Amino acid sequence: MRIKENASCRLLNLSQTARFLKKHDNYVILTHASPDGDTLGSAYALYYGLKEIGKCATVLCPEVIPSKYDYFVRETDHIKGDNTTVIAVDVADKSLLGSLKDEFGDRVDLTIDHHISNTMYAQNLYLDSAASATCEIIYELLLKMRVNVNDITAKALYTGIATDTGCFKYSCVTAKTHIIAAELYEFELDAAKINKLMFDTKSRKLVELEKMVLEGAEYHFDGRCMLLCVTADMQEKTGCSGTDLEGIAVLSRSVEGVIAGVTLKQTGDNEFKASLRTYPPLNASAICKQLGGGGHTAAAGATVNGSLEEVKSKVLGFIEKALEETDDRSATCK
Amino acid sequence: MRIKENASCRLLNLSQTARFLKKHDNYVILTHASPDGDTLGSAYALYYGLKEIGKCATVLCPEVIPSKYDYFVRETDHIKGDNTTVIAVDVADKSLLGSLKDEFGDRVDLTIDHHISNTMYAQNLYLDSAASATCEIIYELLLKMRVNVNDITAKALYTGIATDTGCFKYSCVTAKTHIIAAELYEFELDAAKINKLMFDTKSRKLVELEKMVLEGAEYHFDGRCMLLCVTADMQEKTGCSGTDLEGIAVLSRSVEGVIAGVTLKQTGDNEFKASLRTYPPLNASAICKQLGGGGHTAAAGATVNGSLEEVKSKVLGFIEKALEETDDRSATCK
Repeated sequence: MRIKENASCRLLNLSQTARFLKKHDNYVILTHASPDGDTLGSAYALYYGLKEIGKCATVLCPEVIPSKYDYFVRETDHIKGDNTTVIAVDVADKSLLGSLKDEFGDRVDLTIDHHISNTMYAQNLYLDSAASATCEIIYELLLKMRVNVNDITAKALYTGIATDTGCFKYSCVTAKTHIIAAELYEFELDAAKINKLMFDTKSRKLVELEKMVLEGAEYHFDGRCMLLCVTADMQEKTGCSGTDLEGIAVLSRSVEGVIAGVTLKQTGDNEFKASLRTYPPLNASAICKQLGGGGHTAAAGATVNGSLEEVKSKVLGFIEKALEETDDRSATCK
Repeated sequence: MRIKENASCRLLNLSQTARFLKKHDNYVILTHASPDGDTLGSAYALYYGLKEIGKCATVLCPEVIPSKYDYFVRETDHIKGDNTTVIAVDVADKSLLGSLKDEFGDRVDLTIDHHISNTMYAQNLYLDSAASATCEIIYELLLKMRVNVNDITAKALYTGIATDTGCFKYSCVTAKTHIIAAELYEFELDAAKINKLMFDTKSRKLVELEKMVLEGAEYHFDGRCMLLCVTADMQEKTGCSGTDLEGIAVLSRSVEGVIAGVTLKQTGDNEFKASLRTYPPLNASAICKQLGGGGHTAAAGATVNGSLEEVKSKVLGFIEKALEETDDRSATCK
């Protein structure tokens, strides 16, 4: 694990993190913006765990939590005063705190994360980049703290692990991931219901949108790159927006021969959210970093400004460069 | 477990099945027609296991094995003479043996299966309907026989479990399923590569076909039923056929509010393969049985003759009836 040096950030191990959580109180647990199953699952599982040991805690999400997570989301405590302990879960950089950044960005006491790209913005960091999801870490942390896991905590944890691994599909999954899943099955989990909700529940309007998006699919660089666009016009026509669009990026990575799937979602007049999904030897995180974004090796994103044509050309330019570098490397190896 | 009585079929338990396999030799292992990951994974894992204990064995599949399974499919032994032991894996009824039915249908010595709908056509049956996949049973059987599992066997077993569970998504998954997956991860498995191949590798022509199919999507019974048609014309225009079409049925079960997803694939001038995917309280197997087919509670199929309009009306008729019965039951409960 190589992470950027940051003198003011102390790296903790699991035991130290458990001790930290037992020692402090009045926890403000932060999730990242565009909240997904892992950041929300981690925040609520940690919340329920802290409640079990008599702590006060609240969960703050920079955006409205999508209703599909209602089965594990509950009202949390009201934390008053300045004597709080701020924890960010699954938040790789303070910029990802969105609307909470100004208030909390520079006073995060502890981050618990699995992103290798974590920028060490917190006072303390527990990073396990081998974990498939931050929820995997939270589960181990709860065991280490000897906190009782209950049904709702299990649901939150399972949700994070399932969503961050594409339901145990991706390369981040390890034997440990499956063992934790097996242990969570001991609770009233109804994993099939969770999976249906997370993976197999498209609104009819989304089916409409997907049809439009596929209609405009472009293939580039000998079919190694698939590009999908979700224009403002398409969003307006179908009524899809925000979290409706979450699943679209997956479409771009499932076509034979494609090792770079790009989805451009229009988020403003001259603003697009680029989502990149790659297969080896391409590195989505490295490409998105050049675009001012970040993420994982296989899935990353960036916000890119310009007209659709400008953004396309910019993103495709970096992908072409990455493909050429890959070709050069394999030529050298021969 | 309730199964139809059949005096001539002996029900075995795991130990008896292991003893049976150790006792006999010259195994002919049969898969079902339209071979999927579970029947092929079971057949090859069993083959490799039997080879480990010095037995002669061959795998027979009624159809050409799709090349995507090449990573665990190898040439098997040539079995000569009449002194063979015939085993069917994941084959619920002898009619599913397809082109192998005439030769082997009435002389299967042992069936190993997880389908509750198994018709007990064999001399001996080991049925575990709680197993998510027949590969789960084969894994336990290999352990019971104290046979070494190796990398290729692990790949075959993982493939069967992953494909029959929608990659650990469906309600057939148990804690045991995840424990077995964790144990298989101890081998050189590259599960992510297998999953990419099984779940996320669409040909471009399939993307074209999906677009056409979605274009003609019909919703019935207040949106509780989605009907998709894959006509011969669509197959011809896109060049998709056979196993290309495997994934289409999944589209029909992923729309919000839909509890009956029907996919009609044209297989002849007046012949359609109906694939039904349901959610509780509907029972796909019960509906397909009325159409002369069968399968699981959540996924079943039948071959239906007639013009597209006739077949539609027939299939929708049974679904409407099932929905009405459901409505009646819930009305009575109130």
